[in-house]
Amino acid sequence: MKDTANFYMRPIEGLTVLVDLDTKEVVEITDKGRNIPIPKAANTDYRFSAQNSHQNLLNPISIEQPKGPSYTIEDDHLVKWANWEFHLKPDPRAGVIVSGAKVRDPGTGILRNVMYKGFSSELFVPYMDPTDAWYFKTYMDAGEYGFGLQAMPLDPLNDCPRNAYYMDGVFPAADGTPYVRSNMVCVFESYAGDIGWRHAESPITGMEIREVRPKVTLVVRMAASVANYDYIVDWEFQTDGLIRVKVGLSGILMVKGTSYVNMNQVNQQENLFGTLLSENVIGVIHDHYITFYLDMDVDGSNNSFVKVNIERAYNSPKESPRRSYLKAVKNVAKTEKDAQIKLKLYDPSEFHVINPSKKTRVGNPVGYKVVPAGTAASLLDLDDPPQKRGAFTNNQIWVTPYSQKEQWAGGLFVYQSHGEDTLAVWSNRNRPIENKDIVLWYTLGFHHVPCQEDFPIMPIVSSSFDLKPVNFFESNPILNIPPNFEKDLPICNAAASA
Amino acid sequence: MKDTANFYMRPIEGLTVLVDLDTKEVVEITDKGRNIPIPKAANTDYRFSAQNSHQNLLNPISIEQPKGPSYTIEDDHLVKWANWEFHLKPDPRAGVIVSGAKVRDPGTGILRNVMYKGFSSELFVPYMDPTDAWYFKTYMDAGEYGFGLQAMPLDPLNDCPRNAYYMDGVFPAADGTPYVRSNMVCVFESYAGDIGWRHAESPITGMEIREVRPKVTLVVRMAASVANYDYIVDWEFQTDGLIRVKVGLSGILMVKGTSYVNMNQVNQQENLFGTLLSENVIGVIHDHYITFYLDMDVDGSNNSFVKVNIERAYNSPKESPRRSYLKAVKNVAKTEKDAQIKLKLYDPSEFHVINPSKKTRVGNPVGYKVVPAGTAASLLDLDDPPQKRGAFTNNQIWVTPYSQKEQWAGGLFVYQSHGEDTLAVWSNRNRPIENKDIVLWYTLGFHHVPCQEDFPIMPIVSSSFDLKPVNFFESNPILNIPPNFEKDLPICNAAASA
Repeated sequence: MKDTANFYMRPIEGLTVLVDLDTKEVVEITDKGRNIPIPKAANTDYRFSAQNSHQNLLNPISIEQPKGPSYTIEDDHLVKWANWEFHLKPDPRAGVIVSGAKVRDPGTGILRNVMYKGFSSELFVPYMDPTDAWYFKTYMDAGEYGFGLQAMPLDPLNDCPRNAYYMDGVFPAADGTPYVRSNMVCVFESYAGDIGWRHAESPITGMEIREVRPKVTLVVRMAASVANYDYIVDWEFQTDGLIRVKVGLSGILMVKGTSYVNMNQVNQQENLFGTLLSENVIGVIHDHYITFYLDMDVDGSNNSFVKVNIERAYNSPKESPRRSYLKAVKNVAKTEKDAQIKLKLYDPSEFHVINPSKKTRVGNPVGYKVVPAGTAASLLDLDDPPQKRGAFTNNQIWVTPYSQKEQWAGGLFVYQSHGEDTLAVWSNRNRPIENKDIVLWYTLGFHHVPCQEDFPIMPIVSSSFDLKPVNFFESNPILNIPPNFEKDLPICNAAASA
Repeated sequence: MKDTANFYMRPIEGLTVLVDLDTKEVVEITDKGRNIPIPKAANTDYRFSAQNSHQNLLNPISIEQPKGPSYTIEDDHLVKWANWEFHLKPDPRAGVIVSGAKVRDPGTGILRNVMYKGFSSELFVPYMDPTDAWYFKTYMDAGEYGFGLQAMPLDPLNDCPRNAYYMDGVFPAADGTPYVRSNMVCVFESYAGDIGWRHAESPITGMEIREVRPKVTLVVRMAASVANYDYIVDWEFQTDGLIRVKVGLSGILMVKGTSYVNMNQVNQQENLFGTLLSENVIGVIHDHYITFYLDMDVDGSNNSFVKVNIERAYNSPKESPRRSYLKAVKNVAKTEKDAQIKLKLYDPSEFHVINPSKKTRVGNPVGYKVVPAGTAASLLDLDDPPQKRGAFTNNQIWVTPYSQKEQWAGGLFVYQSHGEDTLAVWSNRNRPIENKDIVLWYTLGFHHVPCQEDFPIMPIVSSSFDLKPVNFFESNPILNIPPNFEKDLPICNAAASA
């Protein structure tokens, strides 16, 4: 750690010590990196106090709520905000568990069940270097380290804005003594200047209409620092019933030492397993997968999973000058294998969780859909040992019948496992899932080919997926929310002048 | 328009009038919808003034900047913000044109070119009903209506937050007289409580480190109301060099009348071409495609397009207990056909625009990459007349050599066109594109199967793509920005108490 706090950027490459943890004996020491220098410390420290100069690019900016936030939190766990109510629990393994999520129906005023329980169940982070000191770097951070145990206290005003509520985690230490992880989770309202819904009429209709409603959301956030990497997990609730689950990656890359200081020294045929980020430093290619457990309870526990295929159909030439159009074809999943989904851009579907026994006024089954956004799929060989352990990433979506034993996608005990207790094994039992208490699993993925901008600490990269009401409400549930009016907005002064 | 401002929800179904615009004669009147009632007006009006009651879910919330915004706008067009500088121009056809986008290198202090010009070139919105009154609804909104001409004045405090700058559009009317479209574009700084980069050390290292930087962005926004639909187009600039282009859909669905009032009246085999949204109202399935013209000039005009394939590789059993890993294989596109890209989850790539004659200190070519997020691909038959006109959606990415004649992806003249002047035709000439002034084209897509929540006006649905620096900077360009400090944040009061 000499000359920098960023010791991750100064690897002693190729030095491996094999220890027998039972006998506590060193079995083998190998040093294959004698010709590889330790990278220099220069330009690696990221701390504010260690910078020679600062870029002051921006005037102060803040989300302000002069009348305070709109949420209340009862018993330090039950969150009530706008039309939402849910329970929040810091968990040593999952990080944050959201449960009993209910949204108020604007028509009846009744709180309706959406999700019984949701959390990040497991991660899989394989590094793409099969050589000696690297092949075993295929992390499963929740089961191996505890995603919650690695969630450090959040930094007020930076990790979360003003007016955030902070929740502590209380966990048992290895000897059973309880300890407090302070400020582990935050809850805040977010307004980015975005729009909830809008419409303006064109002059052609002669109607002077311009109706716009702002979008304000409630964010639940934690940040796990699993050694070098930082994962920011957000559960974002919208008043229109949508829940967005967002994962951000930041922190520090895991890098490899090299004798190279410039790409002009590298033979075109040579595989560096990554990108030369700085002199003697390679950022190794890797993937990140985060698999979410989503026990949906749409208006009750018995639900079905419906794959709505969007398919090309052909019309007859007589019918129309068109040749083709798209139609939506609904397929109810009978058993687990019907719900093993690989996403395809040219064979698209919507993925609904419906309550088959509850219909809207005009007869559509009430439902929520999972809406993937940017993601990545694991391309490792299915018989590769790490991929067997991480087999829960073999599909992007799975649906299982609820079982109290099936909550951790990589298995209850992850260390030394061979993949005998993963989501893939459970799902292949092919149990019935129609009109049952079902659990939806969604995996968010990232391929990460490092670039120099990630050195010495990386700007956040995020992706997300949504749980979105689909014929759950009779109509737009926020039709009658008011717009912003100038008279309601705060009057602010710069702190220095106050 | 009786009893509601939302006349879109009261279609007179099946009544078609065929007019010869040359002779101004009615050629044919057909009425195939005599048995279809006009849907009722109840619950369709979305105006604030027309609501019987309001849901006041939230306390006031606002983005506040007591020292004012950090941007300056010179000559009403040249935007300077943080480390960015670019020119902004309202355009009758494209909506907003961003040009001369440059970012300041934190090492040298020099402004470096990123993008010569970027704008939404064309839209394609095919409705998926091939029958009489619907088959021709396959809109190309930029070329047919003018995306900018349909951009109505923005609503301050709701379309854009406080402290936004509003820019007018000045366009010629049909008779050549100039007119002013006021408040057509807004520019504002956004802070949603998000994180720019962070890292915390775990107790295991014994280092008390928690470094977090907030993320503040600059948004350029316009909202086009193309009859019933509203498109919100955002160009969002980040201090880390990333540009996010986001398209939001809101407004009112195009609906079809039906005699049905409940799905229990519908034979399972019958194709409604959409979803029953309310009594006698079907929301017809449709797609939205928005194709962006992105003339990248990464550190100069001569650039190359590099497809970085992420491929599975196998190691020998001797080498490692692993079987497989992923490697990044670079393929420089020589001609246009090399750069006709269909995205595939299981055959992933990064898509770089590099300057082959400019390298970083350690020898990587400087570049920007286009990063797709959620999108959709057109599935219409390639020989379908509307798809021929919208053939610019046949791939998600294309690269062409710059040509002054090739700016409008659906052709310069869109009405009555047969697809003879589209991006697909130009690209199939297969011209050389290596180390040339190249234009990158990206198409953002949405399949829209309507749901009841979209009635009578739809909550916004958004998707985006990014232009992200990749070895453009020597290292993280915002390493030395300061965190938020309490002393810098404003002191605010509720307006009523001020």
